[in-house]
Amino acid sequence: MKKGLFVTFEGTDGSGKSTQLELAAKYIQEKDVEFIQTRDPGGTPLGCKIREILLNYDGEVAPYCELFLYLADRAQHIDEKILPALNEGKLVLCDRYVDSTMAYQGYARGLGADRILQLNRIAAKSLMPDLTFVFDVNTEVSRQRVGDKKDRLESEADDFHKKVREGYLDLAGKFPERIVVIDANRGIEEVHQDVVKVLGRFFN
Amino acid sequence: MKKGLFVTFEGTDGSGKSTQLELAAKYIQEKDVEFIQTRDPGGTPLGCKIREILLNYDGEVAPYCELFLYLADRAQHIDEKILPALNEGKLVLCDRYVDSTMAYQGYARGLGADRILQLNRIAAKSLMPDLTFVFDVNTEVSRQRVGDKKDRLESEADDFHKKVREGYLDLAGKFPERIVVIDANRGIEEVHQDVVKVLGRFFN
Repeated sequence: MKKGLFVTFEGTDGSGKSTQLELAAKYIQEKDVEFIQTRDPGGTPLGCKIREILLNYDGEVAPYCELFLYLADRAQHIDEKILPALNEGKLVLCDRYVDSTMAYQGYARGLGADRILQLNRIAAKSLMPDLTFVFDVNTEVSRQRVGDKKDRLESEADDFHKKVREGYLDLAGKFPERIVVIDANRGIEEVHQDVVKVLGRFFN
Repeated sequence: MKKGLFVTFEGTDGSGKSTQLELAAKYIQEKDVEFIQTRDPGGTPLGCKIREILLNYDGEVAPYCELFLYLADRAQHIDEKILPALNEGKLVLCDRYVDSTMAYQGYARGLGADRILQLNRIAAKSLMPDLTFVFDVNTEVSRQRVGDKKDRLESEADDFHKKVREGYLDLAGKFPERIVVIDANRGIEEVHQDVVKVLGRFFN
């Protein structure tokens, strides 16, 4: 790699994306590539405070308040952590990023994915991922995996999660140059092997 | 009043705007007009959490993180408190609003006032004040009044506060239909009498 590579892990709640990120990190470690693991929201100390509000605030949150909190977190994350790592030539593995905002706030909350992409450009200094995995699961599998212990967003109705999933699939069609959709209804190891196949194009 | 009236109190730190808002509220009370007093940021319970980050976070805050936190607070404030009050025909007295964001983040941080006005339109559902007081003080008076106990923004260098002041005066020229600049280098009562003269146009 001449400069860093920015890889994001996306999917509905219960898609297994965070587990897959962990497995991918172990795979990368063996390749002796310098990398960081991070998450959106909450990749920085300031971001952790914002994440706490986003996931656990016990009251109604205005849709645009929610959106701007995600963007605030991202602006800090980009400046403090992601861009410095990429500039040092590191690989950045990030749990959620702009596609989450487009799928959740854009499609499911109905704020519009195009508008969010524009706003994200301002917050994130136009930084887009080089590669994005979308772990796709059907709503039934997702519901079973999440179980009963839910945060504010996981507690939304099934219809909301259905829209999130449709949003992701729509985005995959719009950004085929960077988004890879992986069938995540299967077992963890099977899914991981697909991830490795794609990552293998970058590391030998 | 057929519908509510939205009045904002603006100025650099140490301009006396909050004191003037209190005095204006007492004046309004005597007129038997239904009103609310509020502040930006921190006009709602969620907003108080955001305000805490904005004023007291002990670390570097990325400029766009700061901006989006203000906008997040405002989106919540508008939905939960300001619009409902205006729709009930109330007068809303608000300590800081969009002009603060334009003066501090737009002019002083250099993010651009026009861009901020556009973003504010999204966060605030295009709601602009009907009347805005800008309490103008010179930097020396402002510094003396603030003293040594400063929050994150008050702790910025003199040059920052000078830019904020210039920003306000520039905005006054751009929005003469709603912004009234008041010389706040004078004593509290003298300044209050000027406020009363302007408010008197709306209430007898």
